[in-house]
Parts: sequence; structure tokens; C-alpha cells
Amino acid sequence: MTLFEDPPETATPVEARTRVRMVVAYEGSGFKGFAAQAEGVRTVAGVLQEAAHKVLGHPVKLTCAGRTDAGVHAWGQVVHFDSPLDASAGELDLASLQRSLNRMLKPSVVVRAADVASPDFDARFSATARRYRYTIVNTPTPDPFRATTAWHVDTPLDVRAMLAACDPFLGEHDFSTFCKKPDDPARSMVRKVHDATWVDLGEGILRFDIEAQSFCHQMVRSIVGTIVDVGLGKKRAGDITWMLRAKDRSVAGPVAPAHGLCLWEVLYG
Amino acid sequence: MTLFEDPPETATPVEARTRVRMVVAYEGSGFKGFAAQAEGVRTVAGVLQEAAHKVLGHPVKLTCAGRTDAGVHAWGQVVHFDSPLDASAGELDLASLQRSLNRMLKPSVVVRAADVASPDFDARFSATARRYRYTIVNTPTPDPFRATTAWHVDTPLDVRAMLAACDPFLGEHDFSTFCKKPDDPARSMVRKVHDATWVDLGEGILRFDIEAQSFCHQMVRSIVGTIVDVGLGKKRAGDITWMLRAKDRSVAGPVAPAHGLCLWEVLYG
Repeated sequence: MTLFEDPPETATPVEARTRVRMVVAYEGSGFKGFAAQAEGVRTVAGVLQEAAHKVLGHPVKLTCAGRTDAGVHAWGQVVHFDSPLDASAGELDLASLQRSLNRMLKPSVVVRAADVASPDFDARFSATARRYRYTIVNTPTPDPFRATTAWHVDTPLDVRAMLAACDPFLGEHDFSTFCKKPDDPARSMVRKVHDATWVDLGEGILRFDIEAQSFCHQMVRSIVGTIVDVGLGKKRAGDITWMLRAKDRSVAGPVAPAHGLCLWEVLYG
Repeated sequence: MTLFEDPPETATPVEARTRVRMVVAYEGSGFKGFAAQAEGVRTVAGVLQEAAHKVLGHPVKLTCAGRTDAGVHAWGQVVHFDSPLDASAGELDLASLQRSLNRMLKPSVVVRAADVASPDFDARFSATARRYRYTIVNTPTPDPFRATTAWHVDTPLDVRAMLAACDPFLGEHDFSTFCKKPDDPARSMVRKVHDATWVDLGEGILRFDIEAQSFCHQMVRSIVGTIVDVGLGKKRAGDITWMLRAKDRSVAGPVAPAHGLCLWEVLYG
């Protein structure tokens, strides 16, 4: 179930009286990814934990549903943390916390919701599926309004071929071909993809939506890069089945740029 | 016909052999508006003229269809300039100019098209209409992906009332109530609005489109600010007719923020 490496422990454990669940959106351009890192490295968890610490007066350690890489965005990232303050006793006002965090973290990070969760809710392990969205602008000239949120591909793409290239990914496979090699070689690369499809939104905007119970590292971007190679005629949709079987990263297409990717939604139970 | 003040003359006049027409999109956040200003002030015309000078080897003076204010964006700004190079003799390759400019000015400024225009084409005076677009995000929490391109209004807006508030603006009126006072008090504030409407795009995104032959300074933002006051219940749609008649800036609503506004399209002949 472990997605990537565990982050360093940065916060003092607290006696939990309230488990808080938040839905967070962020424009990832200015961050070295979600997971907290060494001091001085700007991460989404880092700025969120620091701001929440200031507001609540105690250290906050976030657990997230999906650790996004540097430059990757989120619309529906889900996190949880524990507070020694008792919400039921009126010690913790989550609407006020949300307002304060949004004031402190705007415009890049927005807490879309903050609620009391049950003590056994876990943003990471309770999640039954994650949906990622990847956006491509397929026009001769780029779009300045999507410079940080979409991959600009100036060569016309064959969207029908790209749709056909989605099917082989559906279901349970070993995704070694499409994932960054893990530090621990024994870690399973088997994942189950529930859904993967392209939508042509018109005016050159192509959107890829993919849902799986979980993803291994760089899996979505590697799949997108490979499907775009199909759209460019460099690879064929029919090649993907043997690519999966090869379990060899060198046969996949390039890893699509981080800035086109967004953790769209996390599903629970 | 003069929209705002004329910019300082920055370029040496050239013997014109080719008139070039370009369609330009820009994310206006990092610019002090379109029109060239004193050295050291970053404007869209400033960076475009400097880059074109480098590529073509001669000074370039741009004329634009609509001088946008600081922070305002454009998708379809139209400009023209004259070159002593003769495109018909192969001295001026506009596809290559476009590629070079886009390489130099990315990601904020994009030349969407560059063509040879007839010598009597004028980006400003040949235009028969301008269309502006204003975007509002009307949700309790802001959207980090629209932080620089839409106005976030957290109180629910009455879109039906806002639609009703569009009608009084249609047709020819003296827009003194809804425009910044010009330096020259004799300048006419009479403008003809062809079309003005709101579209509810769902998920809290409200889009205003307005078309007129030309606009006076801050006219779109002042109209939007007033209509939003109607949407908030602070003013009534029925008040707009007497506001127009009052020719008194103090009766209008606030000027909506620059970053929600975009010069969408310029129409010719």
C-alpha cells in the first residue's frame, strides 16, 4: 500500500482528541511537491503544517492521500491530522481554521473543506481510489493561460489512436514498465486501473482522466507520455500490451511533464 | 476614437515596405498594461517591441486595438507595425518571426498569428468592435488555478438579477457614470454596446461577455462592478437606467478587479 518513501518525522506526536480531514487544492508550480522535506525546501505539506501550527498553537503532522511530485497540482488532495484540541468541547473551530489557512496560504493553496473525521479515518489508507487528470494543449501556439497547468504539444495528435491506447491499461497489471524504480526492489508494482480515457474538450484541449486504487511513482505521467507517443504515430496502441508484459522501463515513452498533472479526486469507501 | 492617452514615441519611424498584423495573447499579471511606457516599466508592447527589434534588426512601433490596463489579460489583442523589409521579396519571414517571438516571450506572451496586412489596415482604427470577457468565481473558497484570471466573490450572486442588469447597457449611451474621467473633458463618453450577457458555466464560474464598437477607460470593469452589486442585492437592475442618465461616476458600483478582465476578440469590417 505504501506509495512512495515516508517523509521525515517533523512534528512532535500529540495526544489526539480530534482527527481533522481537509480537502486541499494547490497550484503546484512553486512547490517541491507535497511531502514535507528538509527545512528551506518549499513543499505544500510544509507551508500547510507551518500555517496550521501558527493558528492552532500546536505542531501539526499531515498525512495525505497522494504524494504529488514537484510541479504537480491538486484539486482534491485529502489530508488528515490529529489535534489535542477537542472539537466537541468547542476548543477547535474548523470553519475559522479554514478561513485563517486560506488567508495565510493564498493564492497557491486553498483548503476547500475542513471537517471532523472519525478516529479511524486515514487520508491514505482509507482511500479506495484516486483520480488524476492530465491536460494537453494541442495547438500550433501555446496558451499563456495554461502555461503552468497543461502540456503544450504543437504537433497534431491522433486522439482516436490515443483512446485506443487507453484500453490495454485497464485492469490489474504489473506497471514496472510505467513506474520509476522503487528504492525497495521487492515492492510490488501491481496496480489496478479502474478507468482511463481522453476527452477532447475542443479548441485543442485534450483531457486525460485515470482512476486506480493507487498509483506507483510517475505512473500517470509515464502512461501519458507513452499514449502521446501513440498520438504522434511514434508508437502503436497495439504495442502497449507487450510493453506492460516486458516490465522494462526502457520500452515506455517519455515521462510527460509534471505541470500538466493534477490529483483531481480521492474516493473513500 | 482615441481610447486613452497616446504612448510616448519610442521608435524611429521607418520607411514602410510591409505592414504586419499580429494577434497576441498575454497573461497580464506581470505587466503594467499593454501600452509602452518609460524604460524600466514592463509592458506588453515594451517586451514585444524589444523582441521584434532584436529579431528584425530595426525598431518596431506597435499600434494596438485596445490598450489594456495593468493586470488585464488578452486572448485576441490585435496589433500592427511597419517594417522596411519587403515580405514579397522574401526579406521578411513572418512564420519565423512568430516562432522567434514566442520562444523569447514565453510563457506570458504568445503571438497567435502574424500576417502581412494591407497598407491601410490599422489595428485600432479599422476595428469595428471589441469583445471583452470578465470571469468571476462565485464559490465559498477561491480556486488556486484562477487566482490571476478571475475575480473571486465568496457571497452567492443572483445571476438572474445580473442578467436583467445587462439590458439597460445595450445600445448607445453616454457612459460617463461608468468611465474614468478623461484628461480632456471635451472627449465624448458616448459608446454603443452591441451585446452584454452573463453565462453560468457551472461549478460557480460566471462569465460576462460584452461587445461594443469601442470602450472608454475602465468601462467594462465599472459595469461589472455595478452588476455584481446588483447580484449581491446592494443595487437593483432597475436603477441602471437612471445611473446612466446621471452621468455621475459616484453613483456607479465599484470598479471590478483588473485580473478578471480579458480582451477576448477584436472584429474588423
